[in-house]
Amino acid sequence: MNRITLSPRIRMTPYHRSVVEAGVSDISVYNKMVMPTSYGDLLAEYDRLLNGVAIWDVSVERQVQISGPDAHVCAQYFTARDITNMVEGQGKYVAMCDHAGRILNDPVLMKLSGNRYWFSIGDNDMLLWCKGIAAERGWDVDVTEPDVSPLAVQGPKAEDLIAELFGEHVRDLKYFWFIETELQGIPVVLCRSGWSKQGGFELFLQDGSRGNDLYSIVMAAGEKYDIGPGAPNHVERVESGLLSYGGDNTPDSNPLEAGMGRYVDTDTEVEYIGKAALQAVVANGGPERVFVGVNVEGELTEAWPLPARTPVTLDGEQVGTLSAIVHSHRLGRTIGLAQIARTVVEADATVEIETPEGRRSATLQKLPFL
Amino acid sequence: MNRITLSPRIRMTPYHRSVVEAGVSDISVYNKMVMPTSYGDLLAEYDRLLNGVAIWDVSVERQVQISGPDAHVCAQYFTARDITNMVEGQGKYVAMCDHAGRILNDPVLMKLSGNRYWFSIGDNDMLLWCKGIAAERGWDVDVTEPDVSPLAVQGPKAEDLIAELFGEHVRDLKYFWFIETELQGIPVVLCRSGWSKQGGFELFLQDGSRGNDLYSIVMAAGEKYDIGPGAPNHVERVESGLLSYGGDNTPDSNPLEAGMGRYVDTDTEVEYIGKAALQAVVANGGPERVFVGVNVEGELTEAWPLPARTPVTLDGEQVGTLSAIVHSHRLGRTIGLAQIARTVVEADATVEIETPEGRRSATLQKLPFL
Repeated sequence: MNRITLSPRIRMTPYHRSVVEAGVSDISVYNKMVMPTSYGDLLAEYDRLLNGVAIWDVSVERQVQISGPDAHVCAQYFTARDITNMVEGQGKYVAMCDHAGRILNDPVLMKLSGNRYWFSIGDNDMLLWCKGIAAERGWDVDVTEPDVSPLAVQGPKAEDLIAELFGEHVRDLKYFWFIETELQGIPVVLCRSGWSKQGGFELFLQDGSRGNDLYSIVMAAGEKYDIGPGAPNHVERVESGLLSYGGDNTPDSNPLEAGMGRYVDTDTEVEYIGKAALQAVVANGGPERVFVGVNVEGELTEAWPLPARTPVTLDGEQVGTLSAIVHSHRLGRTIGLAQIARTVVEADATVEIETPEGRRSATLQKLPFL
Repeated sequence: MNRITLSPRIRMTPYHRSVVEAGVSDISVYNKMVMPTSYGDLLAEYDRLLNGVAIWDVSVERQVQISGPDAHVCAQYFTARDITNMVEGQGKYVAMCDHAGRILNDPVLMKLSGNRYWFSIGDNDMLLWCKGIAAERGWDVDVTEPDVSPLAVQGPKAEDLIAELFGEHVRDLKYFWFIETELQGIPVVLCRSGWSKQGGFELFLQDGSRGNDLYSIVMAAGEKYDIGPGAPNHVERVESGLLSYGGDNTPDSNPLEAGMGRYVDTDTEVEYIGKAALQAVVANGGPERVFVGVNVEGELTEAWPLPARTPVTLDGEQVGTLSAIVHSHRLGRTIGLAQIARTVVEADATVEIETPEGRRSATLQKLPFL
């Protein structure tokens, strides 16, 4: 049942022809769009990300644009972090919450020129959320999904490649900061970003008709760095402890339970959705669950990926959920990600997890692994 | 690139083990859940739907439940149809719109006991939409996704089977009407419904832990009717002119442009989102585009399914989009679905369409084909 029926309900990306030519073998569906997940050799893709440079079609990371006179107050209202002092060209990793303080998304929020903000979102339809609430509030804003499709260039050689394409000044960009620029006439926003801890950039293509042109330009310039295709890498992201929204967290989690505590401002004057609920969580001593790493006993013969969250138990009682389990090539052992009751984490307990190959014991540790 | 990477982001259904045992071969992703789309023999599945009885896992049709003291006013506000006179046990096919009158979903709205409504939704996250707006309005409601997963039984023999399971009284149920009942202790809402024009019922399972039990009971009782697995059938739904929300319509369509004009009330006192915009559409003489059938010249060697909407042109100008093209087994020819400029439809023009096998000419006709 791994064969997918495509449909106009599920959009192709602007890089579609390029990723097919590059040999895409596996996909997922993310924000109702096709997301390439592998080109048939996951180990080579991992090696390229760790030691060279990889090109990823991450168009599925859609932008929700808030523009117009009330853009700032509107963007702030959707953001569980004080963005008062943000300046143009800056990005911040933020949590979006519902009125009960449950996390709805973990985007990078970018402040662009012309009184515009982009929420560069994970897998949940924040366009619907923002559009409905902004209209009800009567704010003078446009809430749209612009024609913007990120292409990521990740790995230790990404900076050299991007400097060659855009100029040496890109080396000065701080993490999540960006410039609005162009590449051979193709409009892009260039941001130091990407869903790995190996360094790199995201090129936010602003003209979907030029996707394959942009892909070709980056590939040609990357040839001398041995660039090759890849995708957000399941093993590296587990090693790095990067949250996969909607996969790692249960739907009722607050951002503190999803490992985002340090990005949430509760002691602030600004108003945002979920603030009172999050203040109550802090006042009550912190989150009930913690996003942690698990060190798994033994090896698994096949451990990529887990198709559903499975129970974590202690003395037969469920105390959390496991959301990923992989063989770490760098650590040479089996690791995973879980959301686990804080009391269990604080007791440094050894838990039991359900893996595709049966029950295993596991110890807990802070993220990231590496 | 037809192999899908599963992930905890994409939920399995409560019937998962049963559909795997039944030989599911193809899936899609719908409302972030796995939707079985075929069991390997589409022609047999079509024949079963047309002449016998088929069982479909349509858990992806999620429910957005509105309950509490303000449930009625809240449900009405999300619904572009006057639901003042709805009674418990009744369902209605409705459009949900944004503030600009663009369609967001085409659910069946069901009025349950205990001041509860269910929007039984197509592929768009109306839980987010409803939850955010209800909270902003300060209504005294709970907006939730309850543990409810529909199992459809479709085809001319479905009624006999359902009468055998639930009693002869089910034969009196009108279309979209339902009863809250149980089957061998499993709580279900039984509704005369389903995404085909071949007749049948949907069993809204209300306890996800009993999915495989329910599946087994229906399969066992259906044996004498030669019941077998299937899924919403792409050929039958094109023949029947059933809208696939998000596939057939462009994102900027109003419900009148999606063939839902007769289900939209604009001459009404009740307040709902998008009402002013839809009144303006009517006042301006009707929708700019029409959802129509296309009769395609010639045969296609492979025409299932179209992976993306393609242009419809007239004298070289784009006048619409094609969203489906199939060989109709009953008509013995190639047909499709399109959204086309009203002026072109009214002129009864012959258009050109882009198919996977090149450009073809096509005539237009009212839906349904059959």
